[in-house]
Amino acid sequence: MKKTVGFGDFLLRLSPPGYRRFAQASTFETYYTGAEANVCASLAVMGEPAAFVTRVPENPIADTGLGELRRLGVDVSGVVRGGDRLGIYYVEKGASQRPSKVVYDRMNSGVTTARRGDFDWKRILKGAGFFHFTGITPALGGELPLIVEDACKAARAAGARISCDLNYRKNLWTPAQAKKTMTRLLPHVDHLVANEEDAEKVLGIKAEDTDITGGKLSRDGYVGVARKLVKAFPNVKTVAITLRRSISASDNIWGAMLYAGGKAYFSRDYNVHIVDRVGGGDSFAAGLVYAIGHGFGPQETIEYAAAASCLKHSIELDVNLSTVAEIRQLMAGDGSGRVQR
Amino acid sequence: MKKTVGFGDFLLRLSPPGYRRFAQASTFETYYTGAEANVCASLAVMGEPAAFVTRVPENPIADTGLGELRRLGVDVSGVVRGGDRLGIYYVEKGASQRPSKVVYDRMNSGVTTARRGDFDWKRILKGAGFFHFTGITPALGGELPLIVEDACKAARAAGARISCDLNYRKNLWTPAQAKKTMTRLLPHVDHLVANEEDAEKVLGIKAEDTDITGGKLSRDGYVGVARKLVKAFPNVKTVAITLRRSISASDNIWGAMLYAGGKAYFSRDYNVHIVDRVGGGDSFAAGLVYAIGHGFGPQETIEYAAAASCLKHSIELDVNLSTVAEIRQLMAGDGSGRVQR
Amino acid sequence: MKKTVGFGDFLLRLSPPGYRRFAQASTFETYYTGAEANVCASLAVMGEPAAFVTRVPENPIADTGLGELRRLGVDVSGVVRGGDRLGIYYVEKGASQRPSKVVYDRMNSGVTTARRGDFDWKRILKGAGFFHFTGITPALGGELPLIVEDACKAARAAGARISCDLNYRKNLWTPAQAKKTMTRLLPHVDHLVANEEDAEKVLGIKAEDTDITGGKLSRDGYVGVARKLVKAFPNVKTVAITLRRSISASDNIWGAMLYAGGKAYFSRDYNVHIVDRVGGGDSFAAGLVYAIGHGFGPQETIEYAAAASCLKHSIELDVNLSTVAEIRQLMAGDGSGRVQR
Amino acid sequence: MKKTVGFGDFLLRLSPPGYRRFAQASTFETYYTGAEANVCASLAVMGEPAAFVTRVPENPIADTGLGELRRLGVDVSGVVRGGDRLGIYYVEKGASQRPSKVVYDRMNSGVTTARRGDFDWKRILKGAGFFHFTGITPALGGELPLIVEDACKAARAAGARISCDLNYRKNLWTPAQAKKTMTRLLPHVDHLVANEEDAEKVLGIKAEDTDITGGKLSRDGYVGVARKLVKAFPNVKTVAITLRRSISASDNIWGAMLYAGGKAYFSRDYNVHIVDRVGGGDSFAAGLVYAIGHGFGPQETIEYAAAASCLKHSIELDVNLSTVAEIRQLMAGDGSGRVQR
Amino acid sequence: MKKTVGFGDFLLRLSPPGYRRFAQASTFETYYTGAEANVCASLAVMGEPAAFVTRVPENPIADTGLGELRRLGVDVSGVVRGGDRLGIYYVEKGASQRPSKVVYDRMNSGVTTARRGDFDWKRILKGAGFFHFTGITPALGGELPLIVEDACKAARAAGARISCDLNYRKNLWTPAQAKKTMTRLLPHVDHLVANEEDAEKVLGIKAEDTDITGGKLSRDGYVGVARKLVKAFPNVKTVAITLRRSISASDNIWGAMLYAGGKAYFSRDYNVHIVDRVGGGDSFAAGLVYAIGHGFGPQETIEYAAAASCLKHSIELDVNLSTVAEIRQLMAGDGSGRVQR
Amino acid sequence: MKKTVGFGDFLLRLSPPGYRRFAQASTFETYYTGAEANVCASLAVMGEPAAFVTRVPENPIADTGLGELRRLGVDVSGVVRGGDRLGIYYVEKGASQRPSKVVYDRMNSGVTTARRGDFDWKRILKGAGFFHFTGITPALGGELPLIVEDACKAARAAGARISCDLNYRKNLWTPAQAKKTMTRLLPHVDHLVANEEDAEKVLGIKAEDTDITGGKLSRDGYVGVARKLVKAFPNVKTVAITLRRSISASDNIWGAMLYAGGKAYFSRDYNVHIVDRVGGGDSFAAGLVYAIGHGFGPQETIEYAAAASCLKHSIELDVNLSTVAEIRQLMAGDGSGRVQR
Repeated sequence: MKKTVGFGDFLLRLSPPGYRRFAQASTFETYYTGAEANVCASLAVMGEPAAFVTRVPENPIADTGLGELRRLGVDVSGVVRGGDRLGIYYVEKGASQRPSKVVYDRMNSGVTTARRGDFDWKRILKGAGFFHFTGITPALGGELPLIVEDACKAARAAGARISCDLNYRKNLWTPAQAKKTMTRLLPHVDHLVANEEDAEKVLGIKAEDTDITGGKLSRDGYVGVARKLVKAFPNVKTVAITLRRSISASDNIWGAMLYAGGKAYFSRDYNVHIVDRVGGGDSFAAGLVYAIGHGFGPQETIEYAAAASCLKHSIELDVNLSTVAEIRQLMAGDGSGRVQR
Repeated sequence: MKKTVGFGDFLLRLSPPGYRRFAQASTFETYYTGAEANVCASLAVMGEPAAFVTRVPENPIADTGLGELRRLGVDVSGVVRGGDRLGIYYVEKGASQRPSKVVYDRMNSGVTTARRGDFDWKRILKGAGFFHFTGITPALGGELPLIVEDACKAARAAGARISCDLNYRKNLWTPAQAKKTMTRLLPHVDHLVANEEDAEKVLGIKAEDTDITGGKLSRDGYVGVARKLVKAFPNVKTVAITLRRSISASDNIWGAMLYAGGKAYFSRDYNVHIVDRVGGGDSFAAGLVYAIGHGFGPQETIEYAAAASCLKHSIELDVNLSTVAEIRQLMAGDGSGRVQR
Repeated sequence: MKKTVGFGDFLLRLSPPGYRRFAQASTFETYYTGAEANVCASLAVMGEPAAFVTRVPENPIADTGLGELRRLGVDVSGVVRGGDRLGIYYVEKGASQRPSKVVYDRMNSGVTTARRGDFDWKRILKGAGFFHFTGITPALGGELPLIVEDACKAARAAGARISCDLNYRKNLWTPAQAKKTMTRLLPHVDHLVANEEDAEKVLGIKAEDTDITGGKLSRDGYVGVARKLVKAFPNVKTVAITLRRSISASDNIWGAMLYAGGKAYFSRDYNVHIVDRVGGGDSFAAGLVYAIGHGFGPQETIEYAAAASCLKHSIELDVNLSTVAEIRQLMAGDGSGRVQR
Repeated sequence: MKKTVGFGDFLLRLSPPGYRRFAQASTFETYYTGAEANVCASLAVMGEPAAFVTRVPENPIADTGLGELRRLGVDVSGVVRGGDRLGIYYVEKGASQRPSKVVYDRMNSGVTTARRGDFDWKRILKGAGFFHFTGITPALGGELPLIVEDACKAARAAGARISCDLNYRKNLWTPAQAKKTMTRLLPHVDHLVANEEDAEKVLGIKAEDTDITGGKLSRDGYVGVARKLVKAFPNVKTVAITLRRSISASDNIWGAMLYAGGKAYFSRDYNVHIVDRVGGGDSFAAGLVYAIGHGFGPQETIEYAAAASCLKHSIELDVNLSTVAEIRQLMAGDGSGRVQR
Repeated sequence: MKKTVGFGDFLLRLSPPGYRRFAQASTFETYYTGAEANVCASLAVMGEPAAFVTRVPENPIADTGLGELRRLGVDVSGVVRGGDRLGIYYVEKGASQRPSKVVYDRMNSGVTTARRGDFDWKRILKGAGFFHFTGITPALGGELPLIVEDACKAARAAGARISCDLNYRKNLWTPAQAKKTMTRLLPHVDHLVANEEDAEKVLGIKAEDTDITGGKLSRDGYVGVARKLVKAFPNVKTVAITLRRSISASDNIWGAMLYAGGKAYFSRDYNVHIVDRVGGGDSFAAGLVYAIGHGFGPQETIEYAAAASCLKHSIELDVNLSTVAEIRQLMAGDGSGRVQR
Repeated sequence: MKKTVGFGDFLLRLSPPGYRRFAQASTFETYYTGAEANVCASLAVMGEPAAFVTRVPENPIADTGLGELRRLGVDVSGVVRGGDRLGIYYVEKGASQRPSKVVYDRMNSGVTTARRGDFDWKRILKGAGFFHFTGITPALGGELPLIVEDACKAARAAGARISCDLNYRKNLWTPAQAKKTMTRLLPHVDHLVANEEDAEKVLGIKAEDTDITGGKLSRDGYVGVARKLVKAFPNVKTVAITLRRSISASDNIWGAMLYAGGKAYFSRDYNVHIVDRVGGGDSFAAGLVYAIGHGFGPQETIEYAAAASCLKHSIELDVNLSTVAEIRQLMAGDGSGRVQR
């Protein structure tokens, strides 16, 4: 594959150890993450070239974060240094009936005060096969909607495909704001990831017969959402939707659907006993990019992305550390967890 | 609510990390706990005033324990200092077919050598809405049965309601001793918590059709126990019974029953994947006190107490750190464990 | 019981904490282990005399390992010091669909360069009731096949029974090599442990109707394997087979079969939520030796060995720390995991 | 003593474990701190009533911080909830020739966006004996200079003495800004803590013959600084200066001077082997408030404050956990570190 | 050497990690210890046979402690099981001017309720070369003074030498009680360890010109104490005194004196940077027993014991893990700390 | 600077936490290291391009090690995968009079079985400014002496300077073997690092008046050693010698000498309180390469290298994480350890 370029925010994650609540922690486990950074890291672990672009301050905390990406094999030479702080998010891991809890402290992070002139997209995207972004990035405001648009245009000019994960975050913007901005960006997108909540909140496209909290899911409802998305944005070649049924914070059923060429392809379902579900969506997007980049057929594509993200749930922290061989093995049907010697 | 006052022993809990056995530990996790202290702490976390009374020695270990209660918002200004030692209990967390193991080393703790004159109950209970104790406290012997009786009388005089969790502990006293003492104390009690084992061991009241080890439960059996309890102690306005079906040390089904006004109310059942089950009963009693103190109806009362204690099982250590909002959310049906951002 | 003597390699185990992957570890948890060492340790924990024989270098890492066996009550006075290194194996614990991963670095460990003259088997086995070895030991090559044969002969001379766990390891030798060596050793064996994979790989004996990866199991198939084993090696008095159905790396169904006197005895099945499955087989062999050594009947024998190894899955690291009382309690049907106070 | 009220920012401290650098940390130790909060906490540990006032957001991270103050015995009932975030500072502990490193991320913390109307100083300061603030608080900008002035006026009206630690921070404001603001606030101050650097940067008052980096110190120079401070602000009754000679990040010589009634009093010097030097100045201010509040003479006052802060250097994290008895013991000359049984 | 037998209490040590204070610990490091147990363990590490005798309850905490002794090579087959609890002591490690702090919770430990009939001294001491006890054991009261006397008599009958470390503990008994009991036991002792404080408190023998707190030491004073001890108990063949000058809790000067045959022999002095000073005295006694048992001359004896205990100060927890080779190397003058490859 | 290329072995370091001995560790801290890898990493941290070449097996442990180098900014694209294992060394950190202890388990590591054809030196060294190796690499045997010679020739052809740290290791080869091999390699070397022990053991060149263990040092002796080295190998332009005086395992005096152009230049001396002394020599070599590469004069060169390696002693694990700014600040005289805000 040609390299994938991701652009977005980059954050310090702080979590109490194990299943401790915030009030019970005298240490926080640290990690460095971001939706697009995770996609790049996941692709690098799969052995593909990936470059992550962001803007972070010149301080040893940000240095440590970039070192972590470098460790995983991500090219961070395009990162711009500046701004006042690295954003932070605090995660408390849930269990059983107690949900995971996230507290964001990401305002004024380096990328939110970036200017359009900070990024030489032409140079950055030279030779790229994919440009990836999520709805979180424009949601952070400032010049970011314009910067993402610049990047999309440069990507198209460079011959790269564009993938986007809608990823609606209610604490960052309103549905109205999201709709306005995303409607401007989506005409550039070739491969869209969205769940039913994103589609409804961002674009007003509603799944029928779906009650998320209650865990009921209608396959037809999802197909309908995808169809409407493609109708609204005909440039979109594939729509992928992850299907998570939350039994509890400890156990989920996980699968996915790909809508491509007017048809829907459903992956196998996995009964997932969760180690860390953060980054599940990012690992799915990475699997999708990998599969599309390697020219897999639609069924193989959705199976690969579903298996990749299934494995992510068994891995601590935000990045999917699964190799292609491990994902292939799960796709081949071996979810038995027998020891690999 | 007016403040709740709890009285009982206060212990240092020592546990191997994670699922290690005692023999595998080179560190013990520390915590400071006690049945009544946990009820007070749980109420304080719910935002209600709570004061805990005990007697502990003048040393930095006990100081640390009191600091922990203060941190959670419990008023410890009524604690008497004295005695030779802080009691200890060692807990090894079970998993799957291996049960949790508790080793007690609580003899001669400060409260066991307390004298009646040590506590000015009139002052302590001034303005209290509830006085809470468990069967463990009189079981510790010395002057404690008399001290608890003093407290009950003062509580009644102060207009406080009295709640009691029978909590029979076979390593502290015999059924005969328990019966003799508790029969003297129960006529003061308004709200009783008991499980079928307590009722049988302490008062000789037996559930029919119930085989605890086998996990079989008859709803009718529980109603019968409650009915007999109220008949024996007509002052008791409500009897609450927790219904635990142990699938294994890792998985339980959890629910509860409230017997009030001659009728039985059953809560929803929860499939609980256990993080730490210690303190489950105490969190239930706290939920009950909260619900009764706020004047909830009987169904809402038992749902609140059951949901509160369900959440406790997903929280490390002895105290339920769930807020009212979190309990309400679970009662509202969202046990899906979806991330709270 | 008279003492059990085990002989084999002794290794340092290094594992990332919790469910971290190798690449996420900045510390490794250490443990000292070996298939036969674990059997001895398990018997010592059950209160029986056990001596472990190996050859390890004269350095503080090996000293620490021997100290660990001594701590558990194993007699290590027969250990020979020499060779260049202690073997190592790295284990990454799996979860859900992600399998556990083992990386071996055991070449040139002390025992692999041992010479026949290093061990005075006559002295070592004096008074022994059992001599135990696994297929791993001769698989390590060098003079080990001969040394094991020497030990078997000395054991027979000393009146000890010989137990063997086939334990085929494809990274140590080929089926052809295994067959050649084991066919020479098995005529000494009284009690054989094997799973269907071992039997097929080592002796070409195949279970019918069994698809391991798919998790399908035919009871008849197992009986057939055992019957063929006994036919091939008529000295073998019992064949025990563990029946593991891997739902995932987190959940297994665990049971076992004993073939004795021409009849098959199946244990109860356990739904195991796994804490650490390494050493499951060794704990089973230890349970078997204990049961046979105490003269249990065939059904009680297989129930004891199955319960012992069921409990091992709930215990961290390689050695089963379950006492006889704990195993008995589980056999008696109490797998409810209720707290033991 | 009557209660001491402190006002200022409240931060989350994040530090790598031990002597690890930022880039080597996969966990951060957490603590909750602030210059004035530390003074209050230190007084509470000494058994004196203390209340801390700040503004922090309504989230579980801030809740945890307030819990920590409550644990130490500080009254936080006057804390206002609001704003977007809890400020953060990262500390990497130095050793030998490597200095400790601090990275601030405190912009937009709750207190910086507080409004004058947020604090009912009359109510808060009722019954107070001391109001304490540091130069950091007005340096944070917004309405804080005015809020501090309001508090000072209310403190004087309530009959409380005012203590101030100049604490110049070059990354928060310029000398010119500091001079302008502090010149307005200092006429309210009764007891001033300053080091030679503060005096020079904030007020342009220079110590003669002092080369901080070189570690040379002239006693006369310090007396001169104090004399000039008192001359400039005749309301100031005492000026206290800490005298730190940094041999290395691991070893310091520590002492202090009190200028009172036109005379200078020097404490004994301590050779300090540093465990954690953060909070050394705050513990000194707390010692001073305690000594003045208890009416100690000037020599005893400076010995008490110096001994208190000497002990702080041997204690992890920001708060001095030394009791009055421990400080008294050191003042009495026992710095031998013999075990206390 | 023939085996050394030690008799005394056995405790669980609980310490905050690193230099944390009690109030800062959410975990305690665990260790299992006792003055005489440490002497036995130290001798076992030096490769000598050693057996420790005590009485501890039948529970998994005590089991773990005995396992630890077994790990180090100590024979615990003579330990009697019984009593209610394992004693505990809490240690907070000091640093710089802050002294270490010990909180004892050892009342009613198993050994304190032992009866004379519990120990078959004749069998236990068969073949022993040394019997070792400290003043702590009779100080614990009950039948212990008589039991120790029984052991001394049996030791003499078995031809073993008796070593005793006076080890006065003011929280266990008064000088009057100590004097009465020790005066009865000392006539059995061949080799006595005492410091100047012990001699004064227990026997009223006073060092001249010595001010412990001030750190001043007179060599002549120590010689005088030893001479008086030998005069009072002419059976005592050697008196050894450790000379600790506490610069601070982090740095000590350490040396020792042996008085033998009417002459005093002083060891080399060591500037010790302390890792853990608990067990320093026990490691000295072990060194002495080793040296005397091997027939070293008086100067070599005191150098060996001083070097052994010097190294203990650089080792965590209570037992000296130094080998004979390591002690020899330090005696040979290499205290340079150069890496051993 | 042009890139520096290092070649050598790459190992997993395993160390007990803190000052624990091997026998006290239930976890080992992990790190990935090698003499030449550390030099490359140190240069990368200083912002210079560096590439490390080695041969390691295809397994996740080696992957993790390479990831760590990548994190620090080292180019590992030239690493060859193959061989059976990653070498290991165990380090136990010393303190006070107890020396650090190293146990090697590095035989048969990937690089030791490398073949000359494995490395395309022409390609690897293209554009290199420096090629760096140590005496350890040829000492590992196999084809390594020839491979290093190949690399040296290719380096000279590419116009790179060659730096070599003699680094004699007595457990890898004899003085005779070392002399034979190094005499063949040294004619290629431009910049030599050696201490007096290396010079004597490898080349028979002896410092006069130097007693290492005793800590006595003669400046003239070192100058003499350097002069003899340059005389023997006239191609050597500079000889650098580190001057370590070990007070204890906790405290060293550290400095260095550069012999260049027939003159000796001595750095300032540092009193170092040691955090981790492993890698001190490698950080010195890295400082030297940096200084020479930047064309510093001889005095500035030796001051830079000494300051860099002084700081290393205050940093955990093997790599010097000091930046150029930090080294410059120490050179400028600020070793006071004052906090950097």
